[in-house]
Amino acid sequence: ICIPSVDFFSSAASFMMSAENAALDFSHSGKVSRCYEEYSSSSSSTSRAAGMNGNGPSKLVDPLEDPVPGLGTYEDFNTIDWVREKSKDRDRHREITKKSRQSTVALLHSVSDAFSGWLLMLLVGLMSGALAGGIDIAAHWLTDMKDGVCLIGFWFNHEHCCWTSNETTFQERDRCPQWQSWGELITGTSEGAFAYVVNYLMYILWALLFSFLAVILVRAFAPYACGSGIPEIKTILSGFIIRGYLGKWTLIIKTITLVLAVSSGLSLGKEGPLVHVACCCANILCHLFTKYRKNEAKRREVLSAAAAVGVSVAFGAPIGGVLFSLEEVSYYFPLKTLWRSFFAALVAAFTLRSINPFGNSRLVLFYVEFHAPWHLVELAPFILLGIFGGLWGALFIRANIAWCKIRKSTRLGHYPVIEVLVVAALTALVAYPNSYTRMSGAELISELFNDCSLLDSSQLCGYKQVQPSPPSSSVGNSLADRPAGEGLYTALWQLALALVFKMMITVITFGMKVPSGLFIPSMAVGAIAGRLLGVGMEQLAYYNHDSFIFKGWCSPGADCITPGLYAMVGAAACLGGVTRMTVSLVVIMFELTGGLEYIVPLMAATMTSKWVADAFGREGIYEAHIRLNGYPFLEPKEEFDHSSLAVDVMRPRRSDPALAVLTQDGMTVGEVEALVESTHYSGFPVVVSPESQRLVGFVLRRDLLISIDNARKRQEGVVSASTVVFTEHALAQAADAPPPLRLRGIMDLSPFTVTDHTPMDITVDIFRKLGLRQCLVTHNGRLLGIITKKDILKHMAQIANRDPDSILFN
Amino acid sequence: ICIPSVDFFSSAASFMMSAENAALDFSHSGKVSRCYEEYSSSSSSTSRAAGMNGNGPSKLVDPLEDPVPGLGTYEDFNTIDWVREKSKDRDRHREITKKSRQSTVALLHSVSDAFSGWLLMLLVGLMSGALAGGIDIAAHWLTDMKDGVCLIGFWFNHEHCCWTSNETTFQERDRCPQWQSWGELITGTSEGAFAYVVNYLMYILWALLFSFLAVILVRAFAPYACGSGIPEIKTILSGFIIRGYLGKWTLIIKTITLVLAVSSGLSLGKEGPLVHVACCCANILCHLFTKYRKNEAKRREVLSAAAAVGVSVAFGAPIGGVLFSLEEVSYYFPLKTLWRSFFAALVAAFTLRSINPFGNSRLVLFYVEFHAPWHLVELAPFILLGIFGGLWGALFIRANIAWCKIRKSTRLGHYPVIEVLVVAALTALVAYPNSYTRMSGAELISELFNDCSLLDSSQLCGYKQVQPSPPSSSVGNSLADRPAGEGLYTALWQLALALVFKMMITVITFGMKVPSGLFIPSMAVGAIAGRLLGVGMEQLAYYNHDSFIFKGWCSPGADCITPGLYAMVGAAACLGGVTRMTVSLVVIMFELTGGLEYIVPLMAATMTSKWVADAFGREGIYEAHIRLNGYPFLEPKEEFDHSSLAVDVMRPRRSDPALAVLTQDGMTVGEVEALVESTHYSGFPVVVSPESQRLVGFVLRRDLLISIDNARKRQEGVVSASTVVFTEHALAQAADAPPPLRLRGIMDLSPFTVTDHTPMDITVDIFRKLGLRQCLVTHNGRLLGIITKKDILKHMAQIANRDPDSILFN
Repeated sequence: ICIPSVDFFSSAASFMMSAENAALDFSHSGKVSRCYEEYSSSSSSTSRAAGMNGNGPSKLVDPLEDPVPGLGTYEDFNTIDWVREKSKDRDRHREITKKSRQSTVALLHSVSDAFSGWLLMLLVGLMSGALAGGIDIAAHWLTDMKDGVCLIGFWFNHEHCCWTSNETTFQERDRCPQWQSWGELITGTSEGAFAYVVNYLMYILWALLFSFLAVILVRAFAPYACGSGIPEIKTILSGFIIRGYLGKWTLIIKTITLVLAVSSGLSLGKEGPLVHVACCCANILCHLFTKYRKNEAKRREVLSAAAAVGVSVAFGAPIGGVLFSLEEVSYYFPLKTLWRSFFAALVAAFTLRSINPFGNSRLVLFYVEFHAPWHLVELAPFILLGIFGGLWGALFIRANIAWCKIRKSTRLGHYPVIEVLVVAALTALVAYPNSYTRMSGAELISELFNDCSLLDSSQLCGYKQVQPSPPSSSVGNSLADRPAGEGLYTALWQLALALVFKMMITVITFGMKVPSGLFIPSMAVGAIAGRLLGVGMEQLAYYNHDSFIFKGWCSPGADCITPGLYAMVGAAACLGGVTRMTVSLVVIMFELTGGLEYIVPLMAATMTSKWVADAFGREGIYEAHIRLNGYPFLEPKEEFDHSSLAVDVMRPRRSDPALAVLTQDGMTVGEVEALVESTHYSGFPVVVSPESQRLVGFVLRRDLLISIDNARKRQEGVVSASTVVFTEHALAQAADAPPPLRLRGIMDLSPFTVTDHTPMDITVDIFRKLGLRQCLVTHNGRLLGIITKKDILKHMAQIANRDPDSILFN
Repeated sequence: ICIPSVDFFSSAASFMMSAENAALDFSHSGKVSRCYEEYSSSSSSTSRAAGMNGNGPSKLVDPLEDPVPGLGTYEDFNTIDWVREKSKDRDRHREITKKSRQSTVALLHSVSDAFSGWLLMLLVGLMSGALAGGIDIAAHWLTDMKDGVCLIGFWFNHEHCCWTSNETTFQERDRCPQWQSWGELITGTSEGAFAYVVNYLMYILWALLFSFLAVILVRAFAPYACGSGIPEIKTILSGFIIRGYLGKWTLIIKTITLVLAVSSGLSLGKEGPLVHVACCCANILCHLFTKYRKNEAKRREVLSAAAAVGVSVAFGAPIGGVLFSLEEVSYYFPLKTLWRSFFAALVAAFTLRSINPFGNSRLVLFYVEFHAPWHLVELAPFILLGIFGGLWGALFIRANIAWCKIRKSTRLGHYPVIEVLVVAALTALVAYPNSYTRMSGAELISELFNDCSLLDSSQLCGYKQVQPSPPSSSVGNSLADRPAGEGLYTALWQLALALVFKMMITVITFGMKVPSGLFIPSMAVGAIAGRLLGVGMEQLAYYNHDSFIFKGWCSPGADCITPGLYAMVGAAACLGGVTRMTVSLVVIMFELTGGLEYIVPLMAATMTSKWVADAFGREGIYEAHIRLNGYPFLEPKEEFDHSSLAVDVMRPRRSDPALAVLTQDGMTVGEVEALVESTHYSGFPVVVSPESQRLVGFVLRRDLLISIDNARKRQEGVVSASTVVFTEHALAQAADAPPPLRLRGIMDLSPFTVTDHTPMDITVDIFRKLGLRQCLVTHNGRLLGIITKKDILKHMAQIANRDPDSILFN
């Protein structure tokens, strides 16, 4: 969403997350690898080879005994090697299991290691739930602060302030003498134009103050705290490293600025950023457990669960959260993670419920209960809402991406603080006069989802009372369809204006340098549209109950159309159009209503919305922002649908110089260094000899440099003329020659290879499923070239007629 | 569950599922492959190589123009190659997309192709829902038939029979003059010992008749219809081929015999077999769509969705069904399948609801609504139930497997009909006197889950009325804890006996040659145990409400303990212990109650149960049966936790003769045939020359034999002395030599390779994630050996100290 300009990186990265640089602890097994000539057939053999074999890449066989710092770790803005990480973890696990048979202490360690994942999940759930509760309470308080102040204590929000006064009746529970609006406080009266103007000005003032604080805090302390964070989390989960993105400063600043941004009245929600907050919690808590601190793959399992936790606390939907993580965010989601994320999501939901931020024992503001079933005829308007949602989603993504590009390419991008202040002022200025834009997004949605009962005093329920309902009338009657009255017509006009305003302001708001979620604004747009259509249908049914459409199921006095359900379907459709979520969205909505009954309308609308939006472009908003920022993300959902072969994608191309390779013996340290210096590749294949091009293994640039550097410093006799040996047994050499530098330990002995004829769809599948960083290409057993993840992304960009150089990182 | 003895195979397979042998349609692109020397750097090139590249393996380059029948298909009891199948489908898709730009007809074809998946899902949902409804109604009717008959029409079941008589009051709605028990009908009175004996005898008689019909039908027409089918479906979904297992005869016979088996009163359920029935529906409907008929991988996607449908209709839990398929059954479950299975599961659930088999607008017999919340203290008994469930699960699996082994190895296995009759007679004999065993499993569970209200007349609600509750008392009071009365004590004794009986009889029932599900019997055991504990807790709380445990939350007159909830938790724990399901089980139960409130107890019990059961053995009942039957199933959940290398597992072993390879040119047809004849390998690597051992490709035995056979018949001049050429350009040869046989078209040009140093955990991961059938092993670029899925399974069996030869199939 918001890539901080480059000058930020140095300042931000330097003082954040030093803990993440913790060096890996390398265990040494000291076993030698076996080569072909001496392989044994004993399958139960436990002798181990170096290289990819677990500890391998992080181990120097000889003569160094100390681990080399930095070996086996990754640089910032690089992609991890999933296979290596997972293998490392399996090795660790095997080691612990083996030891556990020897002593009781080791056994206890093994048990605690096995349960540490669950403990971590518990902590993540508790911490995220508590933070979400805090954010809810603080945002509620600050939002009310814009309107007025509680005289008995400024720390009470409007509702709590009036709770303490028992004199108010049910209808007027939000009007009590203890709560005074700013106008009332300053002018002494709550009526009149002057008080209104004072209220208006104070509203704008507070909005400006909150948004200014938010953007300044983000800029000063944690540039990564802006945006929703979901595109970056998707990228991180796919194996990319962005140091500090999930660090403690980001967490602290994001939590504070999220409250400020939501309270400032900007058209943004807190739901997306809650996912980021939960992931920060998880990442920080990972440092408590060696198993997760030291392994990038294991940590990503925890982060996947944390994404589920985020949605669970945002919507009070644990199952929906897990499916969201599975469907939308995660890259590698084993079944174990499914179970654990479910556990964490539940813990978080119950923590939030016991904090009870809304004072109603509910997890969310917009819990709904509908009473009337829907009729098959209503599927038509529901599908209409789906089409609206799809169109809006496609339009929003295009407009927002275009606006973000303008921001990036023009001088606008240099003044983020001013941009935020202008948008905040504009929002406050336009929003205040209209009560539906003045209230917060969540409140608006809650009101729109609500089913009108007779007692309801809200404007949206301003129906005419056709027949004085006797007190003994049945409950069903009190919800019967009625003709719209004055109040409702006013509400409809306001809603229509609110719709246009929300649609426009959201486009320029999402992507600013403050924490901003997209769920609530998108749902608000859909809910307004849905409610408008719902009321329209209701009136149509009321005045035409004899027409062939309504005859038979919608007699006068019956409650046949529920405008609240339309609002909900519309919200789902719009959110679906923007994010392209499907199952998880339906399940989240199902958990809000609790009735299987309403799944079919939701499903019809979401499905339509996705199809319509996909017709205009297959990317959801998060994928679009990933592409905008040039992250190396290999979309797991989309099929690679082109008939190119591995040979078309690999480097070197025909016109390029030959592939830079190392030979397994015969090169000197000086030659190796010169080769590494002259190229920018992140790894080098090792071959038997330049003539045969038979592949032996693969060495990472970083490991190679660190090892040579370390050897030069700490190992005697290693000079530029020393030979570098990757074979197991060094060749005999002249007595006066310097001792050889043996680097078999850092070589990956099992590099992945494909043949040059392998179709790219299969290659892409391999990259995705195994989480590779690079893959070597052979022809008839001879090394031919190399394909990296970046090569694939560039190739895909080229096929889609996009600029292949938009892929920024490796 | 039940592997028919070998003589069945021939008779069964021959007349079933001839449609499944439909040959594949091969399209020819006629493009030549490119080798290294001529590769072009244009990455947007669309020229295509032969070989694995999509149509490749199913294409003979020249001179034949007709497709060779059978090429690219699989033999029975073989494993499919997922990569090849998926690649084939992508090719097909590309072809259609390319054509769709040319004409409107092709565009329509492309659109209909895209939507055919959804249409198929709709049909699967409708058909499975309808079948499930039919099975429910028929089973209900036949079960009642054991008790008596409806005088106004024998086709009414007990409930429907009495619906037509309006004279009965609410309490006595199941007693009406129209319905007469057999004793009443024959002796003329419903009282007395004679009538009881007649009823007893008729009950046993009907049970024997139903079970006899069931086992005879299964034996005569569809041996695959027995058991629950889930182990086999898991194996099929992992890529194994068992022809006829999902055929139309299996469907018809399974549907009929399932009704008979359930009605016979045997301790079995219809829920597991419903998954098999839904998968049969899906497989049969796949034949309507070319896309799914001709592609084994695509068909398995549909089958995964069908498994979700099966659970959805069994428990009325669409979301739980999808998670069941994801967690328990499926092997390859892309996100697209998630969305589609959700759709199919919903359609099926709504079809079932509109059939309304239970007459209560509910999808299941045991829908429950609890009123009281649970207290934290109650977690202790819930965890106790979890431990019970885990122990029972582990015990059941051991006992059942032991019994199945006895059946297999002794003469018992030769008399399946007599076995079924004896067990049915025993079950009926013991079950009839006890009302809790006499009723069907689902009814029992429904009764145990039920919360007692004051009006409830069932024995389980036989509490003493401590205080005459005034009619104006609040609703909460009517559910208050009360001391147990006579009726309840009788019920508890009966339940305890039923528990012992159910536990024993289920062990010998599951695995007989009738359709038999395990869900209901397992849940029944747990529900009984849970209810017993729940009533115990309730009485404890009633008499000790002042003790420190209950003080503060359980005052007299309050409804603090809900025995029904304990039954539900117990049911989940036992089912979890037997099947090791976790998330899906909790979600299924959640969908039954509809309250997030009760997830925590369910989760605590399920988690405990899984951990306890795992301590005794990590296999669930389905995995145990897969192993018992020797299916080649690579468990995706379990980590391979051993440090062996690829070189330890590959063939040939040290003492074996060298690997049988083909050379890319220079071998004659006769030599190739001799080589193929002399070995039993299912495929052969092709190398440049025997000396260099540089790998070129891989040829499947079946494809090789079919091609040579075909060429000999249809191509002129192909004799034993003809050379077989796998290169692109044939070498110059003597003018009088017979024309060469060019087989590059059937060669897989992109075989998967790993190095000999690759750790087996990584290799297993590759096999699982990519769905490989075999993988070649190289050392420094030279071919060394081959690893097949069977080799891996044998290796794993060896590590676990099991007989490696128990892996039967390939």
